[in-house]
Amino acid sequence: MIKKFKQKWLFTPGPLVTSRKTKDAMLVDLGSRESDFIKVNQLVCNNIIKIIGIKDYVCVPIQGSGTFGIEAALSTVLSKKSKILILSNGAYGRRISNICKKISKKFILLTFKEDEIFSIDKCEKLIKKDKQITHVAMVHCETSSGILNPLIDVGSLCKRYKKKLFVDAMSTFGGIKIDFKKNNIDVLVSSPNKCLEGVPGFSFVITKKKSLINCSGNANTLSLDIYDQWKYFQENGQWRFTPPTHSILALYSSLQLLKKEGGISKRYKRYKKNYETLKNGMIKMGFTCFINKNFQSPIIVSFNYPKSSRFHFNTFYKKLSTIGYVIYPGQVTKKKTFRIGCIGDINPSVINSLLKAIKKILFIMKIKHL
Amino acid sequence: MIKKFKQKWLFTPGPLVTSRKTKDAMLVDLGSRESDFIKVNQLVCNNIIKIIGIKDYVCVPIQGSGTFGIEAALSTVLSKKSKILILSNGAYGRRISNICKKISKKFILLTFKEDEIFSIDKCEKLIKKDKQITHVAMVHCETSSGILNPLIDVGSLCKRYKKKLFVDAMSTFGGIKIDFKKNNIDVLVSSPNKCLEGVPGFSFVITKKKSLINCSGNANTLSLDIYDQWKYFQENGQWRFTPPTHSILALYSSLQLLKKEGGISKRYKRYKKNYETLKNGMIKMGFTCFINKNFQSPIIVSFNYPKSSRFHFNTFYKKLSTIGYVIYPGQVTKKKTFRIGCIGDINPSVINSLLKAIKKILFIMKIKHL
Repeated sequence: MIKKFKQKWLFTPGPLVTSRKTKDAMLVDLGSRESDFIKVNQLVCNNIIKIIGIKDYVCVPIQGSGTFGIEAALSTVLSKKSKILILSNGAYGRRISNICKKISKKFILLTFKEDEIFSIDKCEKLIKKDKQITHVAMVHCETSSGILNPLIDVGSLCKRYKKKLFVDAMSTFGGIKIDFKKNNIDVLVSSPNKCLEGVPGFSFVITKKKSLINCSGNANTLSLDIYDQWKYFQENGQWRFTPPTHSILALYSSLQLLKKEGGISKRYKRYKKNYETLKNGMIKMGFTCFINKNFQSPIIVSFNYPKSSRFHFNTFYKKLSTIGYVIYPGQVTKKKTFRIGCIGDINPSVINSLLKAIKKILFIMKIKHL
Repeated sequence: MIKKFKQKWLFTPGPLVTSRKTKDAMLVDLGSRESDFIKVNQLVCNNIIKIIGIKDYVCVPIQGSGTFGIEAALSTVLSKKSKILILSNGAYGRRISNICKKISKKFILLTFKEDEIFSIDKCEKLIKKDKQITHVAMVHCETSSGILNPLIDVGSLCKRYKKKLFVDAMSTFGGIKIDFKKNNIDVLVSSPNKCLEGVPGFSFVITKKKSLINCSGNANTLSLDIYDQWKYFQENGQWRFTPPTHSILALYSSLQLLKKEGGISKRYKRYKKNYETLKNGMIKMGFTCFINKNFQSPIIVSFNYPKSSRFHFNTFYKKLSTIGYVIYPGQVTKKKTFRIGCIGDINPSVINSLLKAIKKILFIMKIKHL
């Protein structure tokens, strides 16, 4: 007898709650060289390119988590001559620099406070000073805090100085409209298990075809080479190495559900409503947000710990989980926070039931003054 | 309306046909930091260690396909001082050397014919000659041909010369009993979607704890570092980066089904019967095997193309697939072959239905003399 796990409500930045249809799509084993699978795979990539609406880009999926996709993209697009300026205000910005260090790519890290968006002035000064810089990297939504970074401003800065823009849009692609042309994005990495509401197993790199074409031989890795994988897709439509067939079927389904919902603008509205419902409900209970509302994404929210000495996050987390609500620990360094995600197959009524559950747990924990 | 795909019989080396129970296990979204998931993950690793029956080893799963696991293991266990002798008689042996080249690890490649097992004498001569050699790598079953390489002989050679043994057991672990102690295996890499009959999404590295403990800092990659992932598991039971939760749930289920079947010895018997049924039936029709039966694994079989000028593999493949039977193209360089796998949730009666289907397609293609 195989244990069945209860489906809880996940308020997490992925894996998150996916629709039953998307999970059902995994109930078939397809051969990885079968024409059915090759078609599904092509449709998935084509549908992603359709989302961005410009044909100058290609979508190259790669096995592994989002970090694998980021490492693969950096490995592939940065040559020995490249130097990447990394703008960071959180864990995922730092991770880009950790990867560059590990894979020996030239980089410079410009750090901002975790609750502040990038200062374009500071970026500009550095770009002017360091003529070696060829690329600028940024995280669109720092999932570690929930801050939404100014893609448009960084994009226009890159345009002005002719730098290539590298975007980690792990937790925004599919949930927030991204204008590839206007922002002159060169490379963007995302994942099926965030706003696209698929399951984990791979990530994908969207890159300008005319940039990728020059990236042969940059990667010092066999597995994480986006160029080689792209060439292989062109030759025979196949992944170089065993693909996560079931996860791809799930994304095939969830992309259709995105279309059915009305595309990114409609999904954004739902997430925004989730966020507003969450924020208002939490503030009503006395919680405060770590990020100023002007910079806050509708993706995930960091709440400051209550001041009450009775509040212990692990207890709070476990009690909520026991009654079916999974929240997320904080990931900022300066302040004690926890996070609640607004994405996945959830709507404001689910958020309301979470708010009720939080109220109940606070009562049980005898936390009166937040 | 999301298209439903027909479940065909896959005679492929993975992804392969999994049981409905295993696929059903994926019908829940678990949070990656949830205690339920952490427990499942621990159980999966513990159950794999139980299979090998020695506690000196640890099992470290890593996102991506089997090749990602091989690259991660090589990146992690080989230091600047290491030099690995790679024994190769096929595509997967060559792949190990391609990885070492890409990730700048010292190696020496010893190549044998694709239908011949390794000559232990030649290996020994090389080991004697090149004192720099610290490791020996071999592929247990070369999935590209189906040849089963002499693990016991290479193991005892390594023992004699105090070399560390690195085994790619992608397509054998769980289907063929492997004696870790007797063969003095240092590192073994395998995948959930072969003989363990799970789904793709990750691979796992089994390594001697006392070897792994010295591997900090060897890897020039953030994502593919087995040591760092192992430390992280020890600290908090979690994956460093988003795990393929659904694939892990599938393996959790399929490991229980392996136990229910009676363990590896019983599974081996079923695969062996599948193989015997397949081989005898194919020979009866006039087909010949590429690998001598003394070296043939019960995992996958390479059949030579029939001599008939009417035989076109793509037509044969497509016609078989249309009626629900998926075979596999060949992967040896010297001869035209196609492959049929014996693994997955299939039994001799399924093999018999495949044989009937092949007979039918040969008749339709008017191939009389093979």
